[in-house]
Amino acid sequence: MQFTNSDTIVTIDLDAVMANWRHLDALSKPQCKTSAVIKADAYGMGAAIIGPHLAAAGCTIFFVMSAHEGASLRVALGDAGFAQCGIFVFAGLQQGQEDIFLDYALMPVINDTSQLARVSMMARTRNTMIPTALHLDTGMSRLGLSSSDMDWLVEQMSEDKTLLDGIDLRFVMSHLTSSDETESPANAAQLTRFNDLHGFFPGVRASLANSGGVFLGKDYHFDLTRPGISLYGVHPAGRSATDANKGLNDAVRWDARILQVHEQKKGNSVGYNGTHILGRDSVIASLAVGYADGYPRALGDRAFGDPALGDKALVEIGGHVAPVIGRVSMDIITVDATDIPPQILRKADHACVLGPHYSLAQMATDAGTISYEILTGIGQRPERQYSYSQKAEFSA
Amino acid sequence: MQFTNSDTIVTIDLDAVMANWRHLDALSKPQCKTSAVIKADAYGMGAAIIGPHLAAAGCTIFFVMSAHEGASLRVALGDAGFAQCGIFVFAGLQQGQEDIFLDYALMPVINDTSQLARVSMMARTRNTMIPTALHLDTGMSRLGLSSSDMDWLVEQMSEDKTLLDGIDLRFVMSHLTSSDETESPANAAQLTRFNDLHGFFPGVRASLANSGGVFLGKDYHFDLTRPGISLYGVHPAGRSATDANKGLNDAVRWDARILQVHEQKKGNSVGYNGTHILGRDSVIASLAVGYADGYPRALGDRAFGDPALGDKALVEIGGHVAPVIGRVSMDIITVDATDIPPQILRKADHACVLGPHYSLAQMATDAGTISYEILTGIGQRPERQYSYSQKAEFSA
Repeated sequence: MQFTNSDTIVTIDLDAVMANWRHLDALSKPQCKTSAVIKADAYGMGAAIIGPHLAAAGCTIFFVMSAHEGASLRVALGDAGFAQCGIFVFAGLQQGQEDIFLDYALMPVINDTSQLARVSMMARTRNTMIPTALHLDTGMSRLGLSSSDMDWLVEQMSEDKTLLDGIDLRFVMSHLTSSDETESPANAAQLTRFNDLHGFFPGVRASLANSGGVFLGKDYHFDLTRPGISLYGVHPAGRSATDANKGLNDAVRWDARILQVHEQKKGNSVGYNGTHILGRDSVIASLAVGYADGYPRALGDRAFGDPALGDKALVEIGGHVAPVIGRVSMDIITVDATDIPPQILRKADHACVLGPHYSLAQMATDAGTISYEILTGIGQRPERQYSYSQKAEFSA
Repeated sequence: MQFTNSDTIVTIDLDAVMANWRHLDALSKPQCKTSAVIKADAYGMGAAIIGPHLAAAGCTIFFVMSAHEGASLRVALGDAGFAQCGIFVFAGLQQGQEDIFLDYALMPVINDTSQLARVSMMARTRNTMIPTALHLDTGMSRLGLSSSDMDWLVEQMSEDKTLLDGIDLRFVMSHLTSSDETESPANAAQLTRFNDLHGFFPGVRASLANSGGVFLGKDYHFDLTRPGISLYGVHPAGRSATDANKGLNDAVRWDARILQVHEQKKGNSVGYNGTHILGRDSVIASLAVGYADGYPRALGDRAFGDPALGDKALVEIGGHVAPVIGRVSMDIITVDATDIPPQILRKADHACVLGPHYSLAQMATDAGTISYEILTGIGQRPERQYSYSQKAEFSA
């Protein structure tokens, strides 16, 4: 790891991401396809890199949020020789986006009747078939055709067979609200509702499972699964990859330059508002990462706990862990490096702030949020570096 | 505002930023210079735009965090005809950064004795004088020369007058820990300590005040103030610009596309984990902004409170406010738009999620954090747009 120009580096293990996708793919039957949800720039990990590597692993269908994200991904996939991959856009066709959908071969997820009308109109005026997915809301109340939309649609379809003219309906889909709570009755209720609605579209393939849904079992898989967060080794239910989820590998680590190591006297305070008072003469290491980088401010100022330091955010320096003390600043965190052997500290130029010693799931729990927000919250200042043991086979 | 391609837009009012800088500048004596701290990409607002506009307003000294940020700012300032501006780098000269400091005319803030030695060595080997600031720690225990460093330095200086050879010491500086707590005794204690330390450097100019320090009064101003957050209209103590801080203007607003408007029945749940149950038949608007954009997940799921909706995050659609309900998703928030007149909702294509109806300070309070984390946490997906009534006078 090279810290001359960058102060903080996020390293994405592409082997792990590819292996995670293969593992998730292997959990469903061979005839069920496994897509990849790489919206929000692949959860901040870089869709232009993650996308082609997943395509190299065998993924042929991708989901992004917006037309804009889709256009960028189309270019990245094309450059890597994967022009044939399909790209669905969750937000659907918004007003004025006809050209970008056609130019970049994007497939709208249709979420309501006005989008249905817009896509149908586009198909007619452009004299083409538009491949789509139809999103049926089964309990999220967020996107997708509502019950009243569905009633209207079913009635219309029975009267007017041309309603879906020009619309190449590849999938009907829905989204689970509670797949992270494996015991929640909401899962079975949504499954029943989805099966009912799917019945109105005989012969059309179906998709329901996000990452959590993949782990809920084969009833939830249908014809296409849509994992996202698990590509990075995270189980949605928050369990670590080492117990129930053998087969998922952590794919992300995060390091920061050690800006300064300094001695401070017992009784001195550390950081903004002097909230942390040193209980002993201490060695403090100041690291070049802060909340502007997405290191959560909520990880600062945690009360000292048992000797295992279990309730403090931890960093690792040369194989030794050290707790974060004081407030998290915009660009800097301070850690108590007193117990790190001086000969190790002297040689160290960086610390790991997220990695084997302190997982994404643990950081999320300590910050009072979920892994998804930590991952997507990592800012642009941390440089993204990618590790892989073998170059993916790109044709271009 | 044009929502064809972008789903979410942050608009920065450059007139307000420039006016805020002038206001902050007017709070100190004419002989005290006012710099601008635009690290972390100008708190996420775009240093390449903010920097030159502040230079046009009269700012001649900038602070960034890292050499990398400094190099980018140097290019932006140069392109706009402000090549003469000075750029200080808070992190100082890290190992191997000699070339970038010289190539981009960056000035290191010296934080410890090893940096002092490195800069001095660089001056000798490159046969030049290096303009610097010397950072003295007066209570932050984060960066800057510690007490023992200072003892060493003072002793060395008395014996060895060549210790600072090659170092053009422009400023001694320190950083306040508690300037947001105007009544904190820490402020006066740091001021006293800084005055004592400043005494060891006769004739060298001094700098202590961040945004909060500017409001603490003239004793804290010395020769150079360093405002950051207040450039965007935020008073560090969290008070709004309308009372004690007349003269600061909110400079940031944030809008998001309305992706879908849908009717939901009483009793339906909204969003992940079905935490919000609708108490009436409702109209829900789903907006294209989520925690991947930096909209804090902590703003979701807030308990319904009094009729004034004071404890819910609020959005504004066509002049009407609506509360955020259910969990914040990665890319979407859901709001209760039932009380917005249908004719207004029908015509609306976007909602304001941060603006006059719901300030940065209020959002920060509701999310359990500070304005700084909200601002720097806004992701890359929201497009930055800039408004200004008059083109700044750039010579290039």
